[in-house]
Amino acid sequence: MMKLDAEALEHLARGAAFLGTGGGGDPYIGRLMAQEAIREFGMPEVVAPQDVPDDAMVYTSAMIGAPTVLVEKIASGDDVVLAVRKLEAHRGRPADFITPVEIGGCNSMIPIVAAARMGLPLVDADGMGRAFPELQMVTFNVYGVPAAPASLVDEHGNSVIIEAADAKTTEDIARVNVVQMGLSALMSCYAMNGADLKRSAVFGTLTVALEIGRAIARGRRSGDPVAALLEALRASQYYNRCKVLFHGKIVDLRRETTRGFSIGHCHIESIGGEGASLEIEFQNENLVARQNGQVRAVVPDLVCVVDAESAEPITTEALRYGQRVKVVGASTAPVMRSPEALRVFGPRVFGIEQDFVPLEEIHPDA
Amino acid sequence: MMKLDAEALEHLARGAAFLGTGGGGDPYIGRLMAQEAIREFGMPEVVAPQDVPDDAMVYTSAMIGAPTVLVEKIASGDDVVLAVRKLEAHRGRPADFITPVEIGGCNSMIPIVAAARMGLPLVDADGMGRAFPELQMVTFNVYGVPAAPASLVDEHGNSVIIEAADAKTTEDIARVNVVQMGLSALMSCYAMNGADLKRSAVFGTLTVALEIGRAIARGRRSGDPVAALLEALRASQYYNRCKVLFHGKIVDLRRETTRGFSIGHCHIESIGGEGASLEIEFQNENLVARQNGQVRAVVPDLVCVVDAESAEPITTEALRYGQRVKVVGASTAPVMRSPEALRVFGPRVFGIEQDFVPLEEIHPDA
Repeated sequence: MMKLDAEALEHLARGAAFLGTGGGGDPYIGRLMAQEAIREFGMPEVVAPQDVPDDAMVYTSAMIGAPTVLVEKIASGDDVVLAVRKLEAHRGRPADFITPVEIGGCNSMIPIVAAARMGLPLVDADGMGRAFPELQMVTFNVYGVPAAPASLVDEHGNSVIIEAADAKTTEDIARVNVVQMGLSALMSCYAMNGADLKRSAVFGTLTVALEIGRAIARGRRSGDPVAALLEALRASQYYNRCKVLFHGKIVDLRRETTRGFSIGHCHIESIGGEGASLEIEFQNENLVARQNGQVRAVVPDLVCVVDAESAEPITTEALRYGQRVKVVGASTAPVMRSPEALRVFGPRVFGIEQDFVPLEEIHPDA
Repeated sequence: MMKLDAEALEHLARGAAFLGTGGGGDPYIGRLMAQEAIREFGMPEVVAPQDVPDDAMVYTSAMIGAPTVLVEKIASGDDVVLAVRKLEAHRGRPADFITPVEIGGCNSMIPIVAAARMGLPLVDADGMGRAFPELQMVTFNVYGVPAAPASLVDEHGNSVIIEAADAKTTEDIARVNVVQMGLSALMSCYAMNGADLKRSAVFGTLTVALEIGRAIARGRRSGDPVAALLEALRASQYYNRCKVLFHGKIVDLRRETTRGFSIGHCHIESIGGEGASLEIEFQNENLVARQNGQVRAVVPDLVCVVDAESAEPITTEALRYGQRVKVVGASTAPVMRSPEALRVFGPRVFGIEQDFVPLEEIHPDA
């Protein structure tokens, strides 16, 4: 299985930043935290979800909040563990495994911090194979794992345990607490047994993130990192339908941090200047890419912005006027496209007035 | 000790509404809930704080939120108990006694509901001998009892457990949850042992509230309920310095429900029309009464508005343009006037730019 050394962490963080579709927090900060935890506590074992016993207890570990703030308020590590400990104490059952709830950016790294510091194995899986802005938007919820009880911990050690009837109510209550806690907090929720994990998780996403990161590094050496990235996506289980949707320069960018989210849109113009342009809407994560009003890729499929030259993934809070970027669309895992999944995180949930269309239907060449 | 029959409840609710200084929620709603709980589960025993064993566990029971909403969202009784049960489960120690955290209005009644439904004795005491808008504003906090862990429960059974470093942080976190829960919630906090209760509580306040209510009823029969009310205050241990500060008609009233509070002011003009007027500022509770800019009574002393004829206490949400009222000022318990107490709920805490002055210094005839 995967060995989480410093080199792997760098690739994993970059691949996770790509899968984060602009959200999930800054991968650099997360990587430093994971590196530090591994240096001090040793490398956690990474296990395949298939190898988690049915009756083992699996706890998630994540940061929650606005990405614009996540990069400014670095978690100490103690708070990462405290969030899991508070939930363990509340449930009266210790964690046997740690799993990411989302693979995107920082939230691929935080569970490594938790696993390393707690001496627990880390599951190679997550609840979306990407990042999403709200905590009900995970396969665990779609397939019946309760989000609550959920723990929230701030950097001062203040904590909250939420018990709510459903995942959306848990999100609503969590969000006001996150805002009160200064727009970011450490969290544990969706504690579940191995059987539930195995029937609801997106499998192998830490491995895919690592492979994407490695491909980008290889591509940089051979001269075409974006091509190498696409190659890695094509070789993966879920992201194999993929395409560079656009190549251009950011000419307009609106972003505000509101209700605990980074919300906005980004306008990209073709560099040739022939007038073609692409518009991306985001809520922490990129939600939809449109060209002349036509959807080119839409949530839960992936819309990822990378640097045009280096293929470095660009998070929504790092988007800047004048950046030259390529926009990559990619298919998502089948469990993310089921009717019940689309009711939880399909386009209409985000106020996009159309049904989900798979990337490969929009682009048969993808 | 006190017998909580229907007649006593009516008087107790009215007296508590007076001590609530305009806050603490509608006493009528609270009384109906208490009456119903007693009818179904029997009358709880009321015990003097002196009789609570040092090592017994005492839990508080209260509603928290904007009084304007408390009157519209009636607690079911189940939720009152659930708030205590959630805190018991979290602390791993069952309640032996229930105590009010504030005596004002609805929050004198909610603990009766909890005690009746849980079959526990009720302590004749509270944490302020009045009502206050924020949960750090209690003698329990002033004298070192931690507010947290605190439980909040909404009418759908969603719940939150808060663990925070201090009472003000507990309040800040609780408040955003209350707003999210629809501006009112059931709560338990300041769980403490008997020794802590005995060194920090304001004693005998249920009894005083009952006596005030009985005095008003007596006064109505004999023709001068406000005089009877003043007589009861003079006979009490804490409120014995008291005075009718003003008699007039409400000519201006501003009130908004914001940040989970009812905030505003009320302008009362003398009925004779000789131009004298009194201005009251409130945040859930009446905070200060001023005449021509001169303070006539100020928090934590009591500023209470009653109907000029019937002496019916008028909560801030029931204030109406044109009402003929008398404004009564009364001294507060000595534990509420200590320097450490004034740091927690003295005038400056509420943005009133002056030191506390005891009512009897402003009015030597009080």
